[in-house]
Amino acid sequence: MQNPVFIPGPTNMPEALRKAVDVPTMDHRSAAFAEVLTPALEGVRRVVKAATAAVFVFPSTGTGGWEIAITNTLSPGDRILAARHGMFSHRWIDLCQRHGLDVQIVEEEWGAGLPAEAYLEILSADRDHRIKAVLATHNETATGVVSDIAAVRRALDKARHPALLMVDGVSSIGSMDFRFDDWGVDIAVTGSQKGFMLPPGLAITVHSARAMKVAETARLARCFFDIRDMGRTNAAGLYPYTPPVGLICGLKLACDYLLDEGLEAVFARHARIANGVRAAAAAWGLPLGARSPDLYSQTVTAVRTPTGFNATDIVTRAATVYDTAFGTGLGELAGKVFRFGHLGRMSDLTALSGLAVLEMCMVDLGLPIRLGSGVAAAQEVYRSTAAAQIQRAA
Amino acid sequence: MQNPVFIPGPTNMPEALRKAVDVPTMDHRSAAFAEVLTPALEGVRRVVKAATAAVFVFPSTGTGGWEIAITNTLSPGDRILAARHGMFSHRWIDLCQRHGLDVQIVEEEWGAGLPAEAYLEILSADRDHRIKAVLATHNETATGVVSDIAAVRRALDKARHPALLMVDGVSSIGSMDFRFDDWGVDIAVTGSQKGFMLPPGLAITVHSARAMKVAETARLARCFFDIRDMGRTNAAGLYPYTPPVGLICGLKLACDYLLDEGLEAVFARHARIANGVRAAAAAWGLPLGARSPDLYSQTVTAVRTPTGFNATDIVTRAATVYDTAFGTGLGELAGKVFRFGHLGRMSDLTALSGLAVLEMCMVDLGLPIRLGSGVAAAQEVYRSTAAAQIQRAA
Amino acid sequence: MQNPVFIPGPTNMPEALRKAVDVPTMDHRSAAFAEVLTPALEGVRRVVKAATAAVFVFPSTGTGGWEIAITNTLSPGDRILAARHGMFSHRWIDLCQRHGLDVQIVEEEWGAGLPAEAYLEILSADRDHRIKAVLATHNETATGVVSDIAAVRRALDKARHPALLMVDGVSSIGSMDFRFDDWGVDIAVTGSQKGFMLPPGLAITVHSARAMKVAETARLARCFFDIRDMGRTNAAGLYPYTPPVGLICGLKLACDYLLDEGLEAVFARHARIANGVRAAAAAWGLPLGARSPDLYSQTVTAVRTPTGFNATDIVTRAATVYDTAFGTGLGELAGKVFRFGHLGRMSDLTALSGLAVLEMCMVDLGLPIRLGSGVAAAQEVYRSTAAAQIQRAA
Amino acid sequence: MQNPVFIPGPTNMPEALRKAVDVPTMDHRSAAFAEVLTPALEGVRRVVKAATAAVFVFPSTGTGGWEIAITNTLSPGDRILAARHGMFSHRWIDLCQRHGLDVQIVEEEWGAGLPAEAYLEILSADRDHRIKAVLATHNETATGVVSDIAAVRRALDKARHPALLMVDGVSSIGSMDFRFDDWGVDIAVTGSQKGFMLPPGLAITVHSARAMKVAETARLARCFFDIRDMGRTNAAGLYPYTPPVGLICGLKLACDYLLDEGLEAVFARHARIANGVRAAAAAWGLPLGARSPDLYSQTVTAVRTPTGFNATDIVTRAATVYDTAFGTGLGELAGKVFRFGHLGRMSDLTALSGLAVLEMCMVDLGLPIRLGSGVAAAQEVYRSTAAAQIQRAA
Repeated sequence: MQNPVFIPGPTNMPEALRKAVDVPTMDHRSAAFAEVLTPALEGVRRVVKAATAAVFVFPSTGTGGWEIAITNTLSPGDRILAARHGMFSHRWIDLCQRHGLDVQIVEEEWGAGLPAEAYLEILSADRDHRIKAVLATHNETATGVVSDIAAVRRALDKARHPALLMVDGVSSIGSMDFRFDDWGVDIAVTGSQKGFMLPPGLAITVHSARAMKVAETARLARCFFDIRDMGRTNAAGLYPYTPPVGLICGLKLACDYLLDEGLEAVFARHARIANGVRAAAAAWGLPLGARSPDLYSQTVTAVRTPTGFNATDIVTRAATVYDTAFGTGLGELAGKVFRFGHLGRMSDLTALSGLAVLEMCMVDLGLPIRLGSGVAAAQEVYRSTAAAQIQRAA
Repeated sequence: MQNPVFIPGPTNMPEALRKAVDVPTMDHRSAAFAEVLTPALEGVRRVVKAATAAVFVFPSTGTGGWEIAITNTLSPGDRILAARHGMFSHRWIDLCQRHGLDVQIVEEEWGAGLPAEAYLEILSADRDHRIKAVLATHNETATGVVSDIAAVRRALDKARHPALLMVDGVSSIGSMDFRFDDWGVDIAVTGSQKGFMLPPGLAITVHSARAMKVAETARLARCFFDIRDMGRTNAAGLYPYTPPVGLICGLKLACDYLLDEGLEAVFARHARIANGVRAAAAAWGLPLGARSPDLYSQTVTAVRTPTGFNATDIVTRAATVYDTAFGTGLGELAGKVFRFGHLGRMSDLTALSGLAVLEMCMVDLGLPIRLGSGVAAAQEVYRSTAAAQIQRAA
Repeated sequence: MQNPVFIPGPTNMPEALRKAVDVPTMDHRSAAFAEVLTPALEGVRRVVKAATAAVFVFPSTGTGGWEIAITNTLSPGDRILAARHGMFSHRWIDLCQRHGLDVQIVEEEWGAGLPAEAYLEILSADRDHRIKAVLATHNETATGVVSDIAAVRRALDKARHPALLMVDGVSSIGSMDFRFDDWGVDIAVTGSQKGFMLPPGLAITVHSARAMKVAETARLARCFFDIRDMGRTNAAGLYPYTPPVGLICGLKLACDYLLDEGLEAVFARHARIANGVRAAAAAWGLPLGARSPDLYSQTVTAVRTPTGFNATDIVTRAATVYDTAFGTGLGELAGKVFRFGHLGRMSDLTALSGLAVLEMCMVDLGLPIRLGSGVAAAQEVYRSTAAAQIQRAA
Repeated sequence: MQNPVFIPGPTNMPEALRKAVDVPTMDHRSAAFAEVLTPALEGVRRVVKAATAAVFVFPSTGTGGWEIAITNTLSPGDRILAARHGMFSHRWIDLCQRHGLDVQIVEEEWGAGLPAEAYLEILSADRDHRIKAVLATHNETATGVVSDIAAVRRALDKARHPALLMVDGVSSIGSMDFRFDDWGVDIAVTGSQKGFMLPPGLAITVHSARAMKVAETARLARCFFDIRDMGRTNAAGLYPYTPPVGLICGLKLACDYLLDEGLEAVFARHARIANGVRAAAAAWGLPLGARSPDLYSQTVTAVRTPTGFNATDIVTRAATVYDTAFGTGLGELAGKVFRFGHLGRMSDLTALSGLAVLEMCMVDLGLPIRLGSGVAAAQEVYRSTAAAQIQRAA
């Protein structure tokens, strides 16, 4: 297998990041490690546009990050508010329930965004502030839907509700605009293998001063994921246990790359590539998972296939016949969509190559798609915007 | 920094293992991943000499492994029995307490082994079997002490006590004999960065049929670390979240290497290198952390320095003047010992080089050590056993 | 730059070959080196379908290989016969002249194959056998023309002429059928960076028994390139100077890969990819550099652009706007063709991505090409043959 | 094999240089390549302390560099002057003879330096300037002897002789002081795998304006090694054939490293490590290959063993029993010396480890050496100078 992947993470890894991760063993109690750790944490802070928030990096994954978020802030039986509108928001809810939390769930269509209106209503009705936290999945990787976190913050503010705002930014941070401070986020969660373009293995969490404070009194059991141990040791350039040194070296460099390119340029680059993929879907006559343009994710596109057709067959054929990996539909969307991950450092050439493979698969499977049609639509998007893209990079 | 490390893990990494870990992004939902995962799990099973036990590999560390062990078997308030005789046994106890367990602690001198006699007494007295699990640190990395796990099993058996036997094999598995089945171990815990010579990032746990059964009823909260999710998805060649693909590729190869060399040859190799290091300490006239020869670890040696001398100064000097990393004393042993990690693929040449650097540091700091004396003692060990070593490898 | 290259060599390198080349320093006078060298030489022998020929690997390039061929067989003033039908045949002629050889040149149109008829005529007329060698460029990388080496051999045989047959197989060996023994080749020349998919840095030459014999009396000056020194030291597993150990490790593995896949399968794979590229050119309405289908190269395709259009502009635009490298026209064909290298391990996806980029460039530059048209033609080739391809690989 | 090597090149490679060499395929006709090539050439110029000399980098080795030096400056039958005082000076003479040059040889004891007095005498007697070039081996890798190139220049000047001064700096440049301009060198030759710490594969040559001028009229045959083609194409950021891109990327970084550390600091570092090795030899009571201290090389030490003892047995034993590579004696010194290469980035720890292995081998083979004695002598050198070394690096 030499082909790039089109799964919505882990992404294709830039050569330099792979090399940054692949380091010989370094003493993690040495000064050299501290010289990597501190800028890595600072880099994450800048990528999420936080001025002073605390950043933690655990040897884990985004799922572990969800657990870090709740176990370091909540106590058994606490009520939280969450919407279920895709597989990843569903899983976070499940995780909360298994930790003994009382989750008030707003069920939404898979393909919809976060229900800020419903949140406002519920929060306003919660006079005695039994709800301790509001969960928000910034980018639903299952549906290709990005939600308006600022709107959730406005709902909290309008309801004058003190609940913590916890945001899953796993498939958005580093690829789409994320404003920790502006949006009043209390905890943001991500991983190493998406916008940071690294191998999996890190849960990365960002905590506001309020979130840090409640960690002192939160009673959910934790030890491996305790941010107090992590914070105390990090302050001395150390870890409470053996840190994933290579990934942290990679994280430092990934942040340097994103910040050197400029975050707005990075986001524009993602949007441009995504535009091409969506143009291809339109040319094929296939609707998207996201139900309206304001919800279009710039990191992953779910494409719906006609009723009666099993979308997973496309993914299987791409893997077995053309050695190319795409994402399948998950949960409610299983068999109904295939997903094209376009986050990370994806070039025009690479995006087009994924579209070309999809076309072959769809024609092989009898879908009434014209070969080259989606590619041509994307080509038109890319060539008409290439000059501006280059100018921006320069 | 180009020098090898002499910390008791992470170890120096063989070239081929580094390359096995450094893989381009692979779809972790593809058949190719299953073809790596299954033999990796089977390899671990064989390395710990278990016939049918369940093996789990989490993106975490050994500390996470401790948490996996207890949260998947115990319920809040459960009593467990543990000895504290070094920093790592201490930390596991602390972790248990933070998860709401009632730990009956046997305090032992740091430098002593597991108190099988005391365990027997306590277990025999526990008529109503309130103790649900017995913790055992196979190799105390802080003191360089290996304990007799079979003796702990005999204590359990003699007391006819049903408590689960949980063993921390973090710094022993893959380097010293570990007999999961023979010793009646219920859960063994290790990580990627010690005997497997990989980067940190994996918690590896092995569970007996009994341990698997109690997972169904254990009520400690868990989700990221739930072996039920892991087991169900692994059975389909999948993971409950994004797996650390590179490390799992490395784990497969590491097991192949250990098993191809032959476990007994691997253990003999470690013992031989350790013998050289201990001979050096004897030549210097410095006592070891382990208080008797039956407790000598083959993976790490703690060396005591004279009263009034700060052993940590040696480690600091080695790092700052000679770019070489050793382990400091931890906890009660801080300032009293320095530690020489000799686990993994350490050659005669490398072991001698560490000893040579230590000698320079000790003389620099005024200790009455003769340059070359420890090296000579180790050289004598290595040269007198080199032929047999080669024969064994052939 | 993360995009694959479409230059006619160096090729995109498979991950495993890159890793095989990137070895720590090994003593090149050790037994371990001999264990790599011997199978590498044997592997090359099998790839060119030679039973007993001598193989040499020099730290150099294909150009050095041309020099090895002539300086180890000829003497100052010797006459040789060569056709000039592209830039690489031209350069070999130039090299011969600079070494004081008398080259009888058959000028051919660039785009034509080797003139076996003209060779026959000249050789037949050379009654006193003043011609000592016949040069043949198997695959003219400049024009995308593969020639019939067997026909050249037939010409030699028909003329009963004893001249040595020297073949430049730089851009054919390992990718297209090459029959050293069947075709009666005396010296074949190639490099590491084409069909072997390695970094540049090796000249690889294969010598028949006759070619080895004349090396004893050839009087062209040589020392670094003397096959006698190389042969004598290689026989002992050594080199006359420091060998490029990493590249030789890579060469061993590259041969293993080609032979394990099966040479005929490798050739079929190249032909299939090339068919797609040629179908794209046909869809664009652009003629090829090779003037007839029997001359179509399976490793590189030169595509002619309309009169008045500078083909190099496409290559420049691809490089500067789309970060993608193609080959320009060389010499007589400068500005008249662009070249698409499709040798090595190129997937359907990768070939299609190159075509998609070319289409954007051509439309950007005003050529009357329809976006997606060439891609669609190639997709049709690939999808209609994918099943057979997979069957062959299995 | 994981141990460092102690051969006098190729050296152990720093991690960062290995990574710099291991690049994905880059179009060698792109602007990106020129951006690497130009600073690499400039870096070499600065390392040899030349202000304006021409630098060339060929895919070849140091032996190829010798051939480049003579074929680009001399004509058949030209007389040159050379001393033979080791295997490498011998081989260069042999190469010249095979290219038809008339070499006037000064035979010197192997272990002696260049005979500046004898050169002066011969040059003074050569009234009609038949001698066109004087060869000088700066560092005889076979004997561990560094010679005084300035003295050779003074001899030429005193004799008012216009012969070109060609210097083999293969095992000195980048590790010991080399003053191209001050010494009036006309051509300096080196390779990638010694002071530059890269894999083998490059011949690097530096040419004075005079040397460049004679290239126009030199009549020795050449094409692959013609500096005119190389110079013309390099000026445009190109190569006359496929360049070894990875090695050139590495060369750029290696020069950056050497120049950033400071050349005088690099040289002092080498001298300090060499002092330790020589102190060990003295402690063992073994004389050196170099016959007086002014000739001691800072990159390689040849150690003589007692009469009747085969020094090669030590090297064989080190390789087969302790997996460690040292250099054997070559030519006249075969069996009489073993060689310890200490060039490149060698740490105190690494040097000591090599000495420790040698001691085991010597005792194994019955030499009356005390284990640890040489190590102790080197430890004393290193520890007494470590502080100054660190200060210098800071």
